[in-house]
Amino acid sequence: MPIYEYECVKCGLRFELRRSISDSDSEIKCPKCGALNWTDIKKFNLMFTISVGAETDEPNAALRPETTQGSVVEFRKSYMVMRGKLPFILGQVGRVFRNEISPRRALIRMREFQQLEIHVFFDPDNPDEIYKEKLEPYMDYKIRFLRKEDRETGKIVEMTAREGLESGYTINHLITYWLVLYQKFFNEALGFPLERLRYRELIEGEKAHYALAHWDLEVYTEDLGWVELVNNAYRTDYDLSGHMKVSGNDLRVSGSDGKKFLPHLYEPSIGLDRVLFHELMLAYRKDEERVWLQLPRHLAPIEVAVFPLMKKGGMPEKAKEIYLNLLKEGFIVFYDESGTIGRRYRRMDEVGTPLCITVDYQTLEDDTVTMRDRDTMKQVRVRSSDLPSKIRKFLYEGVSIGDLRD
Amino acid sequence: MPIYEYECVKCGLRFELRRSISDSDSEIKCPKCGALNWTDIKKFNLMFTISVGAETDEPNAALRPETTQGSVVEFRKSYMVMRGKLPFILGQVGRVFRNEISPRRALIRMREFQQLEIHVFFDPDNPDEIYKEKLEPYMDYKIRFLRKEDRETGKIVEMTAREGLESGYTINHLITYWLVLYQKFFNEALGFPLERLRYRELIEGEKAHYALAHWDLEVYTEDLGWVELVNNAYRTDYDLSGHMKVSGNDLRVSGSDGKKFLPHLYEPSIGLDRVLFHELMLAYRKDEERVWLQLPRHLAPIEVAVFPLMKKGGMPEKAKEIYLNLLKEGFIVFYDESGTIGRRYRRMDEVGTPLCITVDYQTLEDDTVTMRDRDTMKQVRVRSSDLPSKIRKFLYEGVSIGDLRD
Repeated sequence: MPIYEYECVKCGLRFELRRSISDSDSEIKCPKCGALNWTDIKKFNLMFTISVGAETDEPNAALRPETTQGSVVEFRKSYMVMRGKLPFILGQVGRVFRNEISPRRALIRMREFQQLEIHVFFDPDNPDEIYKEKLEPYMDYKIRFLRKEDRETGKIVEMTAREGLESGYTINHLITYWLVLYQKFFNEALGFPLERLRYRELIEGEKAHYALAHWDLEVYTEDLGWVELVNNAYRTDYDLSGHMKVSGNDLRVSGSDGKKFLPHLYEPSIGLDRVLFHELMLAYRKDEERVWLQLPRHLAPIEVAVFPLMKKGGMPEKAKEIYLNLLKEGFIVFYDESGTIGRRYRRMDEVGTPLCITVDYQTLEDDTVTMRDRDTMKQVRVRSSDLPSKIRKFLYEGVSIGDLRD
Repeated sequence: MPIYEYECVKCGLRFELRRSISDSDSEIKCPKCGALNWTDIKKFNLMFTISVGAETDEPNAALRPETTQGSVVEFRKSYMVMRGKLPFILGQVGRVFRNEISPRRALIRMREFQQLEIHVFFDPDNPDEIYKEKLEPYMDYKIRFLRKEDRETGKIVEMTAREGLESGYTINHLITYWLVLYQKFFNEALGFPLERLRYRELIEGEKAHYALAHWDLEVYTEDLGWVELVNNAYRTDYDLSGHMKVSGNDLRVSGSDGKKFLPHLYEPSIGLDRVLFHELMLAYRKDEERVWLQLPRHLAPIEVAVFPLMKKGGMPEKAKEIYLNLLKEGFIVFYDESGTIGRRYRRMDEVGTPLCITVDYQTLEDDTVTMRDRDTMKQVRVRSSDLPSKIRKFLYEGVSIGDLRD
């Protein structure tokens, strides 16, 4: 069912409703003032039109509203570069522009945003060749679905990759693999809790007209409810056949049996801005004492901060030496000596730096320093020569601060 | 002097001329057909205007023609984040859009391109505080200038950083440092030969109206002549004072003596697309036997290729094992087993892969492989267990292939 946007003549409220095209407007009341009085149908410019050419007055082009068509237009060339083999994948990231009727909700609905897409072209008669092997290690991994029949109750069903395949629900190995991969990525790499993730199956009228199957990977927060992050559309040969028809170019390829066919397209598409927004929202922590950003350790923009306890007695020199050494070891390090030590810890908590290292009086005697964990505020004392290996364990292997004690 | 674009009524040729605003058009002949007949003055739309808002019909915004103003508009906030200290640097990369009158010359003049800028805000009364120390190691480094007085002869003058400072030509340590840095970067990191680089001093009328000093870092090729790569403009307080005037916001900061002043802005701005274009153009090599891309080893998109000599006898398995191990070691590796070995080398030569590793009959006996250098086609045989350290030496330390022999 399409989404309609209503504007109340009486109170000016704008709101959206998903309804059937055959339903009548006359029954829909304004949820704010109760009036039954909507503005007339308006013409909307949903594309950003521009005039290319310094002497051109009339719009003759538009900013792209999606990135998919780029991959489709270049299909022949890409197929050749891939030496005529399927499946192959194109990945692209770029800005798209849509003249949203009502931009709203921070970074969730914007007129200009970043799309991060992969386009998997494959032989529809043989979708599993490579993906059977790729999916093998994840056959028992549970994918979380809101199936269309559970739409009313909101019940989330956990289905292993094997169950998805055997029941036919996830169609083939290729699609099942990508469903597993994205859920794993958001959960394990970005740190989104599993219970806040689900694949919402789109139903007829909701899903794009070209899609044979379509799930939205969504994330839940108390503030925004369920929000779509990844759009997983099985576009079949809709795009290639459309371009073939209009351009007159034969976009078919030859199968191993010599038969010509149009490859199918599977497209997971990420809205990058809203992913970043949720990454920050889910990492935000606050208690009576402080605010901190509990980013996954390996994702933090600053990995380690180095402080001298005081700005005297040789501590800054020693701290700078450690700072430079950690830089050389490849860490993203921040040096700070201004303000009280407590204030410096707070600054790092707020930007999500997982680890602070402090040089104090004792350091000058026995060359040990303290390591402080952002989340627990726990500190341990370690030899400064052991820092690189201990920091690596802490950042990339999930070792807890207590287990790093000498 | 501004640049004028002429269009000949007789033959349709368009060409550009840099001339004084007071000169007359009547003397200028068409360089193609000799006619003295130009089209009338036209109005050009040099910005890409758009309509923001789905119900808006008239253009009410434009795509940005440069990135500088973003940094200037955010100056106050950035200054605060930098804890009220000068100098500080903002860096940004992004697309800019200009409705060029005559897009031409491949990636050199385009309507949409990538700008990569840094904006250095500093205290004009104290530009050298940090930069004195930063410049110290490079005082004897020779910067190549085409000074305005040598414009006619084209003579390039080599001036050390020290000479530039002492003569006052390069103004202060800060500006001198950046002039050194960009020339070094293009020469040493990107591999552009020094004799193809020069800083062209812009003269009154050529340089932007706001710039107190202005050099274009240019590169020379036989095909395109001298082309600007980096625009180094000392913009003074032109931007901040303009924004202060129009916005009514006080953008001044307090110096150590309590006096309020407007920081100055130094801006090196890179056109990214044309840099990539020249990187490829300068790396292109061709002889009777082959075509190859002599990219600096550390810049090549594929660092190492791994081949089995034949697709049998256990060679593919061994080659794949080496391939996976090199991936794990962090290298960008490509595996290929299709076609003759000669053809596989040629493919890698053409995309600029510096090193190919081949597994052959002997490998299966003594676990040695061959390493082949893209540029000399020379091969040496080494133990496969030594590959990671030898590849590192070859790629990042400039060691020649001969010196890697066991």
